[in-house]
Amino acid sequence: MRPLSIEELSPFLSSPDADAMNFLNEIALRFPDAISFAAGRPYDEFFSSELIHRYLDTYRAHLLAESGDDEVHVRRMLLQYGRTKGIINDLIAKSLLVDEDIDVDPESIVVTVGAQEALYLVLRALRRTDHDVVLSVQPAYVGFSGAAQLADMQVLPVSSAPEGVRLSDVRAILRQSRAAGLNPRALYLNTDFANPTGRSLDIATRHRLLRLAEDEQILLIEDNPYGVFSGDRESVPTLKALDGSGQVVYVGSFAKTVFPGARVGYVVADQRVVAAGRTELLADHLAKLKSVLTVNTSPIGQAVIAGKLLENGLSMRAANKREIEVYQRNMRLVLNGLAAAFPKGESPDVSWNVPGGGFFLLLDVPFETGDDVLERSARDHAVLWTPIHHFYGDGRPRKQMRLSFSHLSPAEIHEGLGRLADFIRA
Amino acid sequence: MRPLSIEELSPFLSSPDADAMNFLNEIALRFPDAISFAAGRPYDEFFSSELIHRYLDTYRAHLLAESGDDEVHVRRMLLQYGRTKGIINDLIAKSLLVDEDIDVDPESIVVTVGAQEALYLVLRALRRTDHDVVLSVQPAYVGFSGAAQLADMQVLPVSSAPEGVRLSDVRAILRQSRAAGLNPRALYLNTDFANPTGRSLDIATRHRLLRLAEDEQILLIEDNPYGVFSGDRESVPTLKALDGSGQVVYVGSFAKTVFPGARVGYVVADQRVVAAGRTELLADHLAKLKSVLTVNTSPIGQAVIAGKLLENGLSMRAANKREIEVYQRNMRLVLNGLAAAFPKGESPDVSWNVPGGGFFLLLDVPFETGDDVLERSARDHAVLWTPIHHFYGDGRPRKQMRLSFSHLSPAEIHEGLGRLADFIRA
Repeated sequence: MRPLSIEELSPFLSSPDADAMNFLNEIALRFPDAISFAAGRPYDEFFSSELIHRYLDTYRAHLLAESGDDEVHVRRMLLQYGRTKGIINDLIAKSLLVDEDIDVDPESIVVTVGAQEALYLVLRALRRTDHDVVLSVQPAYVGFSGAAQLADMQVLPVSSAPEGVRLSDVRAILRQSRAAGLNPRALYLNTDFANPTGRSLDIATRHRLLRLAEDEQILLIEDNPYGVFSGDRESVPTLKALDGSGQVVYVGSFAKTVFPGARVGYVVADQRVVAAGRTELLADHLAKLKSVLTVNTSPIGQAVIAGKLLENGLSMRAANKREIEVYQRNMRLVLNGLAAAFPKGESPDVSWNVPGGGFFLLLDVPFETGDDVLERSARDHAVLWTPIHHFYGDGRPRKQMRLSFSHLSPAEIHEGLGRLADFIRA
Repeated sequence: MRPLSIEELSPFLSSPDADAMNFLNEIALRFPDAISFAAGRPYDEFFSSELIHRYLDTYRAHLLAESGDDEVHVRRMLLQYGRTKGIINDLIAKSLLVDEDIDVDPESIVVTVGAQEALYLVLRALRRTDHDVVLSVQPAYVGFSGAAQLADMQVLPVSSAPEGVRLSDVRAILRQSRAAGLNPRALYLNTDFANPTGRSLDIATRHRLLRLAEDEQILLIEDNPYGVFSGDRESVPTLKALDGSGQVVYVGSFAKTVFPGARVGYVVADQRVVAAGRTELLADHLAKLKSVLTVNTSPIGQAVIAGKLLENGLSMRAANKREIEVYQRNMRLVLNGLAAAFPKGESPDVSWNVPGGGFFLLLDVPFETGDDVLERSARDHAVLWTPIHHFYGDGRPRKQMRLSFSHLSPAEIHEGLGRLADFIRA
């Protein structure tokens, strides 16, 4: 075979998103001694390989005791081909009720290979023609625009705002895109401690957004991987918990609350779909797409998640009590460290926001944060962070960086912030 | 939200393929007491939940002993985010050498969520515009046309033949499609004990097909989930083993050789891709697509597969010695049972082929095998099989059915064939 040209392959492979992922992975490998405020990984000091065994056994025991299944049935459930929609849907539904006051039929849930597959399935289902487009609060999780490109769906950016999302902007873009003959189907957003901004929607904005979505008959794709990491403060209800009219498709992840390595996420899609006079759930249609994409989500991975749920009263908030303390402590250390390094009045060009939880915050700096600047930071100061332009997908450098503090120790934060301050002042 | 109409969703969801999967799953659930010659599941009497623990521990011990990794590193490898291309690529490469005499760089392998994700990734990478099309030997695995629809890639059917594939037909379709302005990129096929025909390519056809692919500069997507189930006879080399010029993208599965529930497959894509003067492997580009589809394949699932490989000298043929005996025995029982039920000369309208291995054979019957006919077979005779039209994706009934014998006991085969013969003669 003659060498293929990139020009013969999917346009995605020539896009900035495809290279962004690569560049960010590769720079971490090239500078292994750098302290990384870049990776959005969960804290893993409490991880242990033994937990895989324990959680599997907990779920097996549950199946044998509670469901009246025999060993042969349990073995088949874990090891044979299984239901496309998933096998732990009932436990996920109960957990959503316990943690989020979200009350849904387990049949409206599809268990997916991480939240990433859920995003793709939702977009692929909603994409009928080139006219179908999706709105996304920007800056946004880079995996969302990647999934949209894979689903051949154009993304229309909507401005982020201190209240979470600028609703006037949503209305304007809906109006403009419709005038241009497009068919906006949904708005994508993180409601709590968003990636990369750390911002959350306030309660008034949530109610207004739901009303807007109902008026405009668009779906809201609520992607909520960080919601449980809210510390002590009273948490604001998710859009899905407030969703009286079925506007919200809710995407969840166990990558941050259990193990990324289980590769288990899910989507709640309780919207009705009418086909040939019959009414089905949108979840049933997502499952049809999944059946030709990944067939089903590994029941072994699902069993690991189920074991952790069962050992913690079906509450991911309870299961992550220690981790939440670490994330809150780390955020305090980063905020205090930044305040010490850039005292008020002395560093007018350096500022940052104060999220209520999650893994991230944004740091405004007096220079553009291109990939070349990150390279210099890694090489000369041994500290990594994420240039904000990767979350816009347009390659245009801006004067901002994302700092992630989820997986660092206090000593690493202290040392890392020292290096970062030196770099910023250099 | 008002109910959505199926007309607003992806055209795939209105296609026969989407309904086929549903119908076939649902009929098995509605008639739980029917004996099923329909399901293509591996034999599971040797499965045990304990094996998950054992294989995980075997791989952990291997990492600690062989790779010099410490416990923290191993824990992170299994439970944190991981390399998109996979973590067991070296073991898969060694296994391909041991079992198939396929010699490839581990870097040309991407570990996928089953072979299904591999098929989608390959098609999605090769699809640049509407003009890019793929040829497929038909009848074919229903998941292939599903993946092609998801990747928005038109499938041009090529005739199956006793020698595996009709090469004159391949040439004619290439010529015609190019004359129509299309850009045929690849031909998809099972080389050994194909689903649903049970047919294998003979060695001469393999050599001719490779030459044809090189002359025509198309890729061959060799999907080989059944190749190891060949019994005692000398096995014919895979296309990939004979591939001197890089025409073959090889897709493998551990669903049949280890556990479907691990959801682990892989693709070997050692073709070169030139981008901006740099040469990369096609596998690198498949990994970029994968990073926005499922991020990475569960390392827990990969570890289970690795454990079984390590315990069996990296040979899936060795690991499946008992299973191969079962499949060969079951095929003999089905062939003998059919010969007894439909003696030569007395039943000229009923005939079948004699595969050299695998899970399937085709049965020709004197009536069209529509879904309504299957329904009657299930209801009145408690026996299930697969109507052949599902493997053509056109809904047109033909006088043929697929019989799968992989997961049945001798008693079930005996009883099931009795019911099937009664049904056919009814």
